[in-house]
Amino acid sequence: MHPRSLPLTLLIGLLSLAAPAAPRIDHLEPPHWWVGMKEPLLQLLVEGPDLRRARVRLEQAPKGVGLRNVDYPGGADAVAINLHIAPQAQPGTVTLRLTDPQGNSVLQRFEIKPRAPGSAQRQGFGPRDAIYLVVPDRFAQDAPTKALPPHLVEPIGSRLNPGDRHGGDLTGLRQALPYIAGLGFTQLWPTPLVENNAARYSYHGYGASDFYRIDPRFGAHTDYLALSQEARQRGVGLIQDIVLNHISTSHRWMQNPPSSDWVNQWPSYTETHHARMSLQDPHAAPSDRQRFASGWFSPNMPDLNQRNPFVATYLTQMSIWWVEEAGLSGIRTDTYSYSDRDFLARWSARLMAEYPKLNIVGEEWSPHPAVVAYWQRGKRNHDGYVSHPPSMMDFPLHGALLASLSESDGHDSGFTKLYEALAHDFVYPAPEQLVLFEGNHDTPRVFSLLKEDATAVRMALSFMATAPRIPQFFYGDEVLFTSPAQRDDGRVRAPMPGGWAGDAANAFSAAGLSPDQRAMQDFVRRLFNWRKAEPLIHTGRTMQYAPRDGVYVLFRYQPGESRRVMLVLNKNAGETRLPLTHFPEMTPGVRTVRDALGGPSPTLQDGVLRLPGRGAYVLELR
Amino acid sequence: MHPRSLPLTLLIGLLSLAAPAAPRIDHLEPPHWWVGMKEPLLQLLVEGPDLRRARVRLEQAPKGVGLRNVDYPGGADAVAINLHIAPQAQPGTVTLRLTDPQGNSVLQRFEIKPRAPGSAQRQGFGPRDAIYLVVPDRFAQDAPTKALPPHLVEPIGSRLNPGDRHGGDLTGLRQALPYIAGLGFTQLWPTPLVENNAARYSYHGYGASDFYRIDPRFGAHTDYLALSQEARQRGVGLIQDIVLNHISTSHRWMQNPPSSDWVNQWPSYTETHHARMSLQDPHAAPSDRQRFASGWFSPNMPDLNQRNPFVATYLTQMSIWWVEEAGLSGIRTDTYSYSDRDFLARWSARLMAEYPKLNIVGEEWSPHPAVVAYWQRGKRNHDGYVSHPPSMMDFPLHGALLASLSESDGHDSGFTKLYEALAHDFVYPAPEQLVLFEGNHDTPRVFSLLKEDATAVRMALSFMATAPRIPQFFYGDEVLFTSPAQRDDGRVRAPMPGGWAGDAANAFSAAGLSPDQRAMQDFVRRLFNWRKAEPLIHTGRTMQYAPRDGVYVLFRYQPGESRRVMLVLNKNAGETRLPLTHFPEMTPGVRTVRDALGGPSPTLQDGVLRLPGRGAYVLELR
Repeated sequence: MHPRSLPLTLLIGLLSLAAPAAPRIDHLEPPHWWVGMKEPLLQLLVEGPDLRRARVRLEQAPKGVGLRNVDYPGGADAVAINLHIAPQAQPGTVTLRLTDPQGNSVLQRFEIKPRAPGSAQRQGFGPRDAIYLVVPDRFAQDAPTKALPPHLVEPIGSRLNPGDRHGGDLTGLRQALPYIAGLGFTQLWPTPLVENNAARYSYHGYGASDFYRIDPRFGAHTDYLALSQEARQRGVGLIQDIVLNHISTSHRWMQNPPSSDWVNQWPSYTETHHARMSLQDPHAAPSDRQRFASGWFSPNMPDLNQRNPFVATYLTQMSIWWVEEAGLSGIRTDTYSYSDRDFLARWSARLMAEYPKLNIVGEEWSPHPAVVAYWQRGKRNHDGYVSHPPSMMDFPLHGALLASLSESDGHDSGFTKLYEALAHDFVYPAPEQLVLFEGNHDTPRVFSLLKEDATAVRMALSFMATAPRIPQFFYGDEVLFTSPAQRDDGRVRAPMPGGWAGDAANAFSAAGLSPDQRAMQDFVRRLFNWRKAEPLIHTGRTMQYAPRDGVYVLFRYQPGESRRVMLVLNKNAGETRLPLTHFPEMTPGVRTVRDALGGPSPTLQDGVLRLPGRGAYVLELR
Repeated sequence: MHPRSLPLTLLIGLLSLAAPAAPRIDHLEPPHWWVGMKEPLLQLLVEGPDLRRARVRLEQAPKGVGLRNVDYPGGADAVAINLHIAPQAQPGTVTLRLTDPQGNSVLQRFEIKPRAPGSAQRQGFGPRDAIYLVVPDRFAQDAPTKALPPHLVEPIGSRLNPGDRHGGDLTGLRQALPYIAGLGFTQLWPTPLVENNAARYSYHGYGASDFYRIDPRFGAHTDYLALSQEARQRGVGLIQDIVLNHISTSHRWMQNPPSSDWVNQWPSYTETHHARMSLQDPHAAPSDRQRFASGWFSPNMPDLNQRNPFVATYLTQMSIWWVEEAGLSGIRTDTYSYSDRDFLARWSARLMAEYPKLNIVGEEWSPHPAVVAYWQRGKRNHDGYVSHPPSMMDFPLHGALLASLSESDGHDSGFTKLYEALAHDFVYPAPEQLVLFEGNHDTPRVFSLLKEDATAVRMALSFMATAPRIPQFFYGDEVLFTSPAQRDDGRVRAPMPGGWAGDAANAFSAAGLSPDQRAMQDFVRRLFNWRKAEPLIHTGRTMQYAPRDGVYVLFRYQPGESRRVMLVLNKNAGETRLPLTHFPEMTPGVRTVRDALGGPSPTLQDGVLRLPGRGAYVLELR
């Protein structure tokens, strides 16, 4: 859009001379705002040819809204307009006039809306919830053909090609809400939905080409709002996946950045080396910290420079805008630690100041509890760093859980790993706020990792649902999706059967599923519907026992309440006898044992629990 | 010794009636004490038949020494005599009179000695030191035949049987001091030397049958003092290995304990389950904590009850006694966390109060930094626990170091493990005080673990010698000892060649060693003699770089000093080019690169270091 070549510039200059034209505004972001936010300042980033030279005047504004000042990121084609919105300001329309040095001017309207009631005090997702993760392009398609804007370069491709766009959309996802809610999930996390105009692999959405536009291949902005609204009506909160660290090379900023340092620059292409621990390491080389945080994520994912205050403000307002606009219950932040550390502290502080009960879950892909804990709100860090996200993805416990079920028990292996991983809760300020997952869009499928052993999968899911965590489930695992054991994104993110017209099987209706698939889907439904209604899981305390003879046991309980939940993971084949005296704190007075998921209950005789064999047992004790 | 059966009691009773005898004192411990200790109270534990009924009187005492009171552990045959030794008390002999109800009495003398000058301010081992660990029974024998007291049940056996006593002794070890010092080591840690009167496997010494007696199969008490003295003269400190947690079933206390709760009692035999993390785990079952700390270590290693204050005082005074008596530079504490946690806090506080610069290194066999850090002095713990040992064995970094050299590099493997393990230094209050080892008496031999790859061993040793740690080396690794890859104590603790008359090879003289053995021994000698003289290793700061292309690099430096130590571990076969620009903080102005160990130096040309191939490079940069 911006004239960069001399002849074109000349041409436009001549045109201007010939026919004086108004300054052109190509982008003004955020698109609108609200009265009654905690932070009264709002920065509008306005992009258009030569706008640095424009004068800005407030022509009209609702009561309590004023123009504070005008600021310049540095580029010729960007101006930042700082508004002040007083606490008691009225909603309405602001009218700005931008005038170029030749005296030509343009009027720009900007709407300031009333907030939805209770918006600031919205309840974010938490330990009462269970999250269902979908890759929207791969989940369900409502409209096979859509009229797409011509600037989108990658068309809907073939479902036979794992890297192509498959064409799942928002209305398809909305129609699946009864299915998701019916499985017992209370939160929906779709991978990013904003426009990603990459030439290939655009379906995953992790490279934004427009932070404020829902990708038209998923549907319209209103489709997203309708999804959120209907989900809320069905008791399902919406978590938006936001990428602060990087954008797509197809973003307009790569052609014409608001400032020369908008994106991190290197003498030659420099990629992050993923040395995340350089941030905590007291022996780290500063150059390693810089490369980690400012190196590009990949050649087509340039790294935003959040040390630039205009970039930081843009990203912060963008995040708040989506919470308010789409009624979110939380944010999942991609590649959390790869962003500038000080920016992250301010970003998360601002979000939590605007929405004190919101939840933010950061992705820190480390097997080390001390590293993940560093980022959680409330952690007292060795270097004084203060972080604000209430939650983090629990990669350490995820890894230990799958390892514990994949290897035989020993001094440092099998259930010992699970026990010691949960015991590490002492390093977290609020372990029950961590999100524990059996898999996600970046990991191989759990069924394949556990060697297609459905019993082992049930053990993993049962732990996830009873541990003091927020569980997160990955779409398709309820129908035993498989994948290569090594990372293979396209195959991991396979299309959900029944999501496309003509599919032979249908996960949503269960038609055409194999008996094993039906059994797992039924198990998932019973497990998470039980969890949804079990207060001992939502707010109970936890007691775990050191694993013994291939058996791992965990209890959830409330002091003063005789009812308890007992999870038993049993690796032994054949009948296993478990004396309740092994659990002296949790079993005095226990008279009845019931399978909490409605299956056959194990016998309790003479204080010995008889388990029929290997498997997961979620029990209610009275 | 104690009459337990009725007929015998009767018999003794009749004998007493027949011929009135003085009360008998079988044991009085500690054997002596010193004036000028920080703690003025001293508790003498006196054991002998029916001593509970004896009256105790102070007949005579040096100035400033008084009898505070008499106390009773509970058993019929023990009395605790509490002395008070004023700060200005004079050395001399205390005379106590014990009188039985029949009026028969006995005099007991107890010596209170002057302290060696500077004793309280002795300098414990630290980052300037390197520790040589020996298993004395397996190291060197001076006297093939010794007159042994008849109560010792296990004789010196055959060196063909890995579980037998081999007959190494203290004078043999003393004669090897020039060899040990010549290798560059400045501290000697022998596994326990106190009497262990078990019927089998007594050689390892980890089950005491007498805390105050050097096992006569190792030599006399004076031999131990002579070892310490000569070591000190050669610049080698002595670290005593003390077991607080358990004793041998052959200890007299198993027949006649000073109280019924002297050793932890269970309804039926209960072994610790090694669930050490139950101590930190916020979800731990109290019964798991109890079983961990109070369960027996093995059927022949009963667990002392340190919650009994007499036991606690006994162990504390015993530890101080050895420091003072043998002029120790530190204590290595076996199975540290298995003892009662509160006792450990008081024990270590008392030791450090008596000797503020002493070092204590605890064994906490966990791969998790957060668990090891819990016990180090200065750690601010989540549960308020305050610990006092300045050092801990660095099991996490040990494991990561060996793993990093055993597997290929990847996102979470190879050098990434080493980098991330050292980066975990942020969880420790004083990481440079941790003891890093390549192996010990409980681990397979490093040469075998690294698949008999001497280059990999040199990489491990070079890291150990340059990292900000106190390195600890295991005897025999300098001549490439091998062992099964799975734990096999007897074979790991093989006899040192040349330690016995007639050995075909001799590690001490290098006679009969293979070229590979000579090369490794020479490398160890050059490495640790260099370390001994290199202040940048003793007090310098550390900077490590994220591993890159199979190369791990660490620097030691001092701000303001241009000389630096650079460690390069290179996994690449063939010439490897390392641009100094990869290390921008550490290499500006570098003009010369020299092999610090006296080997051929790599070339530095146009800012590129050319390494001839795979291996460890310890370099000095100027």
